[in-house]
Amino acid sequence: MSVRARIILGAVISLALANAHGAESTSGPVLISARDATQSGAQAQQYLLFQQELDRARKEVEAAIQAGIQVPTPKDPGGGDTHEQHKRNYKSIYQAGLLYRITGEQQYSDWVRSLLLAYADLCPKLGPHPAAANQTAGRLFWQSLNDSVWLVHAAQGYDAVRDALSAQDRGRIDRQVFRVMAKFLSDDSPQVFNRIHNHATWANAAVGMTGYVLRDTELVDKALLGLDKTGKAGFLKQLDVLFSPDGYYAEGPYYQRYALLPFVIFAQAIQNNQPERKIFEYRDGIVLEAIRTTIQLTYDGYFFPINDAMPDKSLRTDELYQAVATAYQVTGDTALLSIAQWQGRVVLAPEGFAVARDIAAGKAQPFPFASRLLRDGPRGDQGALAILRTPSQTLVMKNTAQGMGHGHFDKLNWLLYDNGNSIVTDYGSARFLNIQAKQGGRYLRENDSWAKQTIAHNTLVVNERSHFNGDLKTAEKNAPEQLFFAGGGATQLSTAEISSAYPGVTFRRTIAQLTISGYESPLVVDVLRATSATPAQFDLPLHYSGHLINLAVPHKSNVAARPVLGRANGYQHLWVDAVGAPSSDKNFVTWLNDGRFYTYRVVPPSGAQMIFAESGANDPNFNLRREPVLIQRVTNAANVTFVSLLEPHGRHDGANETTVGSQSGVRALRYTRTADADVVQIELADGRNTILTIADAVDGDATHSVNIAGRPRSWQGHFGRFDQ
Amino acid sequence: MSVRARIILGAVISLALANAHGAESTSGPVLISARDATQSGAQAQQYLLFQQELDRARKEVEAAIQAGIQVPTPKDPGGGDTHEQHKRNYKSIYQAGLLYRITGEQQYSDWVRSLLLAYADLCPKLGPHPAAANQTAGRLFWQSLNDSVWLVHAAQGYDAVRDALSAQDRGRIDRQVFRVMAKFLSDDSPQVFNRIHNHATWANAAVGMTGYVLRDTELVDKALLGLDKTGKAGFLKQLDVLFSPDGYYAEGPYYQRYALLPFVIFAQAIQNNQPERKIFEYRDGIVLEAIRTTIQLTYDGYFFPINDAMPDKSLRTDELYQAVATAYQVTGDTALLSIAQWQGRVVLAPEGFAVARDIAAGKAQPFPFASRLLRDGPRGDQGALAILRTPSQTLVMKNTAQGMGHGHFDKLNWLLYDNGNSIVTDYGSARFLNIQAKQGGRYLRENDSWAKQTIAHNTLVVNERSHFNGDLKTAEKNAPEQLFFAGGGATQLSTAEISSAYPGVTFRRTIAQLTISGYESPLVVDVLRATSATPAQFDLPLHYSGHLINLAVPHKSNVAARPVLGRANGYQHLWVDAVGAPSSDKNFVTWLNDGRFYTYRVVPPSGAQMIFAESGANDPNFNLRREPVLIQRVTNAANVTFVSLLEPHGRHDGANETTVGSQSGVRALRYTRTADADVVQIELADGRNTILTIADAVDGDATHSVNIAGRPRSWQGHFGRFDQ
Repeated sequence: MSVRARIILGAVISLALANAHGAESTSGPVLISARDATQSGAQAQQYLLFQQELDRARKEVEAAIQAGIQVPTPKDPGGGDTHEQHKRNYKSIYQAGLLYRITGEQQYSDWVRSLLLAYADLCPKLGPHPAAANQTAGRLFWQSLNDSVWLVHAAQGYDAVRDALSAQDRGRIDRQVFRVMAKFLSDDSPQVFNRIHNHATWANAAVGMTGYVLRDTELVDKALLGLDKTGKAGFLKQLDVLFSPDGYYAEGPYYQRYALLPFVIFAQAIQNNQPERKIFEYRDGIVLEAIRTTIQLTYDGYFFPINDAMPDKSLRTDELYQAVATAYQVTGDTALLSIAQWQGRVVLAPEGFAVARDIAAGKAQPFPFASRLLRDGPRGDQGALAILRTPSQTLVMKNTAQGMGHGHFDKLNWLLYDNGNSIVTDYGSARFLNIQAKQGGRYLRENDSWAKQTIAHNTLVVNERSHFNGDLKTAEKNAPEQLFFAGGGATQLSTAEISSAYPGVTFRRTIAQLTISGYESPLVVDVLRATSATPAQFDLPLHYSGHLINLAVPHKSNVAARPVLGRANGYQHLWVDAVGAPSSDKNFVTWLNDGRFYTYRVVPPSGAQMIFAESGANDPNFNLRREPVLIQRVTNAANVTFVSLLEPHGRHDGANETTVGSQSGVRALRYTRTADADVVQIELADGRNTILTIADAVDGDATHSVNIAGRPRSWQGHFGRFDQ
Repeated sequence: MSVRARIILGAVISLALANAHGAESTSGPVLISARDATQSGAQAQQYLLFQQELDRARKEVEAAIQAGIQVPTPKDPGGGDTHEQHKRNYKSIYQAGLLYRITGEQQYSDWVRSLLLAYADLCPKLGPHPAAANQTAGRLFWQSLNDSVWLVHAAQGYDAVRDALSAQDRGRIDRQVFRVMAKFLSDDSPQVFNRIHNHATWANAAVGMTGYVLRDTELVDKALLGLDKTGKAGFLKQLDVLFSPDGYYAEGPYYQRYALLPFVIFAQAIQNNQPERKIFEYRDGIVLEAIRTTIQLTYDGYFFPINDAMPDKSLRTDELYQAVATAYQVTGDTALLSIAQWQGRVVLAPEGFAVARDIAAGKAQPFPFASRLLRDGPRGDQGALAILRTPSQTLVMKNTAQGMGHGHFDKLNWLLYDNGNSIVTDYGSARFLNIQAKQGGRYLRENDSWAKQTIAHNTLVVNERSHFNGDLKTAEKNAPEQLFFAGGGATQLSTAEISSAYPGVTFRRTIAQLTISGYESPLVVDVLRATSATPAQFDLPLHYSGHLINLAVPHKSNVAARPVLGRANGYQHLWVDAVGAPSSDKNFVTWLNDGRFYTYRVVPPSGAQMIFAESGANDPNFNLRREPVLIQRVTNAANVTFVSLLEPHGRHDGANETTVGSQSGVRALRYTRTADADVVQIELADGRNTILTIADAVDGDATHSVNIAGRPRSWQGHFGRFDQ
């Protein structure tokens, strides 16, 4: 659907929503259409996906009612008992409110009332949370972020039942819960509320939605425009700044997913109450673009775990149930329905009902996952995330900006997925979310000492220091340059460069996916060229997933005592298993992952070492996962070019006890540097040759030529490909 | 179905089969009913599961026909090109033969003919295989076992088309393929053919089935009764000796699965051709009992990986497709149909057709997985495999005999499955089956140096030596004694003892599964008591799967240099991460596996250490998986009792970001030894107490009593349980 069509549809829906509200009493709900909710309940039995949600919510709320009111004095950090109880409570308020609107059963409004009256006793008495750590203290929770999340959900549950309560109860809950919490999160927390950050988005949404529920335009205006109502902060500013023009969120996919909910749910509230703001058309439809981009940031449903991320996060998460339903309500894009099918869930609200109904009607279409260049930065000029896809493989190049405090120091890093698995990996964050024994579920010390460091990623490390020397402020000021992107066709390719990661060092990286007949998956070529003002040590790590099957590189193993690789910047966490010296023919390793073989082959620079290591050293509390890495190393050089080829091949079937193609199909990998281009030649065992040429120039017009094996080859633009 | 009912049904079917054959021409197939095959083909479209097999086989055979005849001169070891090609060929002969019988299409008989004529050129010329290693050389393959497997399949494919060939072709193939191969595997290989071993079973089946196909009773008699036809060797002797009365195969589940096919397929051939032998009633129906027991030896469809085993082996394997279909044909037991449903496959033969048809008719019943004591040894007096099951948990105690050359030195070892995962693990074998770069796919050196050693298992090691000092002959002569078994109810329990594993050392172990209200899975109590004639070092390893979350035992970590635990018997493969000193209250560790927490709590013997280690030392070729183990150690003691409790608890949901019950629900674990009993007391955090008493006496009649916290408790028989 074009932007224009979306805008028109949005306008139609705005009117529809306004009309729907017009039919309600002025004391009725403002965040949900009472009429649509009642209709969802009446027809639920016809649509399994919605009926399941209704059943699940009923079961959970009824279990909570059985357990009785538990509104404890806040005490524990993340994962602790009081933390989890207050989380269960906001979920219960939210669910019971919706259940009341959908079923009309009074037990649910009674339950919301009882819970909120208990909070009315508690909230006014609360000071800073006793377990507050190095993050902003909340009242109900150890960090105020959780208080915002609590309020976003509680406001929705309360809104749904508010007209069913006595004026006295309503007054008490208005004052002693919602005004108290809204004041705490806005006027009393300017350092959070006025930031440009996902914590602020949650606070804005919580306060704004509370404003609509309490019919308090002052709260709404602060939420939209910041405490001083100038628009320098607040929700609209967040929409301006936190997403790039391509809907990429500065902190990366894990936080994009998390941050999405307050954007979506508050936008929906604005649309319901102030349709004249045309919020879904704001900034060329950025909310909807952000939802679609969030879905693009996945492989097999799981988010690319760049930056601080938990690798088990998938589209099966509350934020995305809501986002899919809202986006479907606004756009009618049936590709969203297939995402809901994968999720197997819909949100318990009229918009979720529509998703369930239309899936049942067979309207779902495949989601158009595709190669995409997602520019980073509010104006799209701070690097990019480059995604290359084929049916069997997805390659991610992280050429983005730093992405604030949760960003990792890994410019020009890459990840590879193949055959359903993560093959070239990203550690994500060092954290056990909500597990109290692991530092209360907070980020672990190893998140700084390992997970954020450059060596924990698949990109260049100079002199054993991380990019920007690990300094966030410097990192925030400097982004890589995305020089070229070609998505689609038999050769997909991305080139980026950065000269600010290390003083005096510039490095450029081209990664290409070459589809070759006879191979189920493309071959991946990686050319990384670095120049340094002074001689330096260059390390290029590759974190891979699989069991080493063949280590053709001559090497010496540390069989009875594994040394630690270095002293700082993540190197202190690596045990050295072996050190090898690749030669021009003994230049590869093969590993096995889930029945497929992967051969990583290099053109070794002069004097290069290959270090085989594993994470887990200097980890007294067993906080790290132990994962293998191989590192190409060149010392005391001013220039280096690392040329590598990753080749997925063959099949090992443990069940049938059959193996085919366990040996690499590549006979040789060659690299030549001409005056203004890189030439990579792949010679296959069956005699075929594939040549990739990469010009230094990145424009599309110039013609370049090289001589390969006595034969002239010319091409137009940044790269050429020649198969023979 | 009772044994009696099985026998009667068996007899009826015998007649039916005999009649079916009576209707065929004397030159027709003898291993398959031509009439039933034709009927299967005619009705295939009605039954998806069978039609899929037909389509799959058609596709595979047609691809093979496209690729053309490839019958190479044997050269490569397991996983190599010629090896895999000859495997593909026998599969193709087998499939094409069945396809011819089922569809009547001549292209399939032509293909079988062409392939076998190519083998008629090759087979007479072959000497010992050039890649033969330390196992018996084959002709087509590096070990003769594969030649037997080839012949079992080729005989079936040939039988199906033999009456469609010219007398000249038939004579040539009879002589130059089947007589040559049968002679090689029988008269020329007495050292294999006359053994009691799965290799011999395959050879017996291959030669016997060839005998039926060639109408050569001499070959059949040798196959049934050994080369000298006295019955001291041969198929019937294998049935007498290789299975215990409970249908447990001496080598363990992995080889039981593998060995099953020749038993089943040859038994079916005997039934078809000599129904008067009543082979399915032989030894009280041992073939059928062995099939049912094979299925019992699984968790979630995967075989318990004790002894030399590949851990990725499940019921989804050709052997079990055939076994399920044959057993269903003979017994009509509809519980077998649910196994076929899980497999999603049926065998492409009339008996597979019946399975597909009856599944479609909705006849499938759940398979009765249950707690079972499977006695080991031909007479059932050589120990046992004890299996304790609850809906969420399966516990396996390996109190079996050695099980020949593929047996591991791990008497009284145990494994635990919980919540769908392997929690207390067994390494299985150190091998990469069919992967040429890993020593041609053969057992690796580390199979002897690590996988077979006692320290690689979850049982007692004395003085850092393996059971029987790792000597197979000694191990074969000595089995543990299964003293007691109670399967079913809230307390399931097994007790076994051995005094031959180490000179002067006796150890007894009781493992119990205690179902406790409020816990989704039972708690597991483990009491291992050892006495030694001289002071010794006792190690009790626990190999577990998961990430350590809480290490409450005071410990010193080796953060920058991990020493190796020992010098030999597997100890040389362990890196020491940390050494701890458990105290009476700081006595547990907790790990996380797939969203569930597991707390392992011990009653530390005086001076006990707890060693945290990981496999992977002294492994220059990266042959080992790296897996964690914790070891309780007591040195310089004549007696020791290790008392441990494994408690599954809580839930961590990464998708929903919720955590409950991450802390152990046990406040204290206490152990008391009385004059004639062990008393284990579990005190829960909520104040409840569970007491398990274990008398030294194992008979069921005697009354025992103990005093616990001033209160007398008495029970009758081996164990008592008291909850308060």
